[in-house]
Amino acid sequence: MSTGSPLLAELIDALRCLPGVGAKTAQRMAFHLLERDRAGARRLAERLGTAVERIGNCTRCRTFSEEPVCVLCASPTRESQLLCVVETPVDQLAIEQATGYRGRYFVLLGRLSPLDGLGPRELGLDLLAARLGEGEVQELIIATNPTVEGEATAHLVAQLAAAAGIRATRLAHGVPLGGELEFIDRGTLAHAFGSRQLLADT
Amino acid sequence: MSTGSPLLAELIDALRCLPGVGAKTAQRMAFHLLERDRAGARRLAERLGTAVERIGNCTRCRTFSEEPVCVLCASPTRESQLLCVVETPVDQLAIEQATGYRGRYFVLLGRLSPLDGLGPRELGLDLLAARLGEGEVQELIIATNPTVEGEATAHLVAQLAAAAGIRATRLAHGVPLGGELEFIDRGTLAHAFGSRQLLADT
Ligand SMILES: [Zn+2]
Ligand SMILES: [Zn+2]
Repeated sequence: MSTGSPLLAELIDALRCLPGVGAKTAQRMAFHLLERDRAGARRLAERLGTAVERIGNCTRCRTFSEEPVCVLCASPTRESQLLCVVETPVDQLAIEQATGYRGRYFVLLGRLSPLDGLGPRELGLDLLAARLGEGEVQELIIATNPTVEGEATAHLVAQLAAAAGIRATRLAHGVPLGGELEFIDRGTLAHAFGSRQLLADT
Repeated sequence: MSTGSPLLAELIDALRCLPGVGAKTAQRMAFHLLERDRAGARRLAERLGTAVERIGNCTRCRTFSEEPVCVLCASPTRESQLLCVVETPVDQLAIEQATGYRGRYFVLLGRLSPLDGLGPRELGLDLLAARLGEGEVQELIIATNPTVEGEATAHLVAQLAAAAGIRATRLAHGVPLGGELEFIDRGTLAHAFGSRQLLADT
């Protein structure tokens, strides 16, 4: 990379940590920020630093949070009898944005994948089981992705619900098989969420 | 934006200062960094902050530089008898990457556009005239974009060269009319650069 500025070359290189950003896009981003939006760049630098420093995981639902208990878990207005299990914070956000869901969440931070070392412990299933044992949850909405691993994960989670005597539901058909929740349009996702169905074995 | 984390919402918002990054992409970027590349995010935060703080413009060629005189201007191995005039640092970088050019540059940081308040002063033409008066430059390669404003700019720059008795050349045809240098493939740009032609009026 030949520019007149080594610091610029370093910035362009650092921008490539962003998903989907190759060399050419990183160049355009760096030049755009330096030429036209230094205030935005300064704000982004600060917020990135703060986020990396302070955002961890909620001790109750495992989603991203800078507090020990996240805003959604701490909220007194969400319905505690509904608990929705998702694979990732991205899926959680997709449901928040697409549906009128007012219950609570549990975020697995992954899906069953023994080859990658992701088993029940890594998915926090002990924490989930403890939560189900508290007696507040009356319906467990299993919103893992409709992939092979996601279905295997759903099966395991459904067993926890059954063991606790809690009704488990799964998002209705409408979610395309093999698809990922976060890429589904809001209408489809809202419909599937609304017509979620009782799992046969619970 | 409902996530469990206000800091995360702020990060997603800040990422939208990047060109071409909308709400959905910003979400994916933020989640990716937090889940999988905190080291990359930390590095990006630092380099963004440093770049915004320290990168200004070279006093000699006006390109981005953290030093008063940029690396390319300071280099003893570049040929001082060749001076290439470009509109932006992006165009300069495109030429550096596509051609074997070993001369020096002058960066206008824009193109003639009276309605936007961009006249000869804003393009640093006084600085360019002084440079041409130093007596080292023997060929002025005018590599402004082949747009209406770029051609008007080229005309003005060619007049400076003529006044100083210096030969002015323009990139050869091959650069598509109405196109922008930075989007041209390297082969075309290298060819056009190699077959640059003497301007008739100099
Ligand atoms: Zn939480
Ligand atoms: Zn310079």
